[in-house]
Amino acid sequence: MTSVHVIKIGGAVINDTGLLQSLLKGLAALPEPFVLVHGGGRKVDEWLLKTGMKPNMIDGRRITDGPTLELAVMNYAGLLNKQIVSYLQSCQQNALGLTGADLNCIRAHRRVHPEIDYGFVGDIDYVDGKVFSDLCHRGVTPVCCAITHDQEGQLLNTNADTIACEISIALSGLTKTHLWYGFEKEGVMVDIDDPSSLVKELTPERYQSMTADGTIHTGMKPKLHNCFRALEAGVESVHICNASQLTNIPVASGTQIMASL
Amino acid sequence: MTSVHVIKIGGAVINDTGLLQSLLKGLAALPEPFVLVHGGGRKVDEWLLKTGMKPNMIDGRRITDGPTLELAVMNYAGLLNKQIVSYLQSCQQNALGLTGADLNCIRAHRRVHPEIDYGFVGDIDYVDGKVFSDLCHRGVTPVCCAITHDQEGQLLNTNADTIACEISIALSGLTKTHLWYGFEKEGVMVDIDDPSSLVKELTPERYQSMTADGTIHTGMKPKLHNCFRALEAGVESVHICNASQLTNIPVASGTQIMASL
Repeated sequence: MTSVHVIKIGGAVINDTGLLQSLLKGLAALPEPFVLVHGGGRKVDEWLLKTGMKPNMIDGRRITDGPTLELAVMNYAGLLNKQIVSYLQSCQQNALGLTGADLNCIRAHRRVHPEIDYGFVGDIDYVDGKVFSDLCHRGVTPVCCAITHDQEGQLLNTNADTIACEISIALSGLTKTHLWYGFEKEGVMVDIDDPSSLVKELTPERYQSMTADGTIHTGMKPKLHNCFRALEAGVESVHICNASQLTNIPVASGTQIMASL
Repeated sequence: MTSVHVIKIGGAVINDTGLLQSLLKGLAALPEPFVLVHGGGRKVDEWLLKTGMKPNMIDGRRITDGPTLELAVMNYAGLLNKQIVSYLQSCQQNALGLTGADLNCIRAHRRVHPEIDYGFVGDIDYVDGKVFSDLCHRGVTPVCCAITHDQEGQLLNTNADTIACEISIALSGLTKTHLWYGFEKEGVMVDIDDPSSLVKELTPERYQSMTADGTIHTGMKPKLHNCFRALEAGVESVHICNASQLTNIPVASGTQIMASL
């Protein structure tokens, strides 16, 4: 195994079956092994509304009460994860769906916060990189959803970007690892409406200045925090790109995250 | 590995978290490796009603239209499977949740019937016994729900009793295998209200006569069909018992299915 790719897909591509299947077909043809991590898209919000409940967000972060956790597990670990696994199988890619509870591969604790009770939200303590590495070695593609557990029987809702980051770090101690975030934009852009403003290489210095002047804000900040964290922890390369670019791995275009000069 | 046990749990125990956890704790202490297969209990019916739909049954068999399949995958492969896996982990039992799509372990086709369209119901073509055997050898407990796939990207709802039967048959070609069906009754009984009427050993001859006189009817018939099929195909022993007896394996009391004299 020369190297392994941790690929996170999220955003609009998750909600569009046609787009998702075309992407999975492309990923199944990649020349090197990969771990797929998926977010949940808008499905949980749809189900909350369908059952007379309301999504509860504070500063863009979901508050996960009991019923919301149930719907998250049903949608992420159930429907979406198994649709992805069965579709990959139809593309001759031997896949295995995972939460952090399966094979005890991602252990977390319920978030502790001085002011906000986030409910059943998990912050990661440990990723068992060997589980992911062994599966890849045996020709199996792990498909990991945004659910972890606390080893005491409690499932926890965990940010999928962070899961991808932590898996890539755990794997980087065992094999050369690349991390890819695919979503509906082309990457990090100076002007969100102008594709030509794509930042092809993002250094920590550029990130600092783009954060200071407000070009980078809200949702992109925690994603980039994960990117820099992975790079500093030994991941070989980190990219943010349009999900459709992922099928060109290892030469997908988008924003490459760079270490300090 | 001296022998492996395929244990199916279903019925009331699935709907009672306290009962289920106490059972899982007992199973985690079993001296020999096991594969756990679980039914879905009443959860899908509850969710159908909650979302304004109705369960559709013909002769005790569920008609699985698109929305029913989604709810089945969400509940069986999502919520219930992952709650079981995370609870087993808390009992130091390394578990892995599976549908038939994961690792391509159970392949099926959509049921063909001359008169009734069962919808997305799968009849099993092939169980990869090696997947289950390898996991058991490596100290992992496979936890299998009632969802299979057709290898063309379609998930299918499949009877959990039949899944347990077919897994036990596939395993019996590789290692000594015992099959156990645990539910809320003591086993096969002559008088359903009289525990002392338990049939301790059921031969095909006794089964024929109990079917002919109407003592065995409806739901018990397909379960017993699976039992005899497993025994004839090489499974070492087959039992039907109260779920609480499963923690006494290999000496659980109940009804033992016997080969012809």
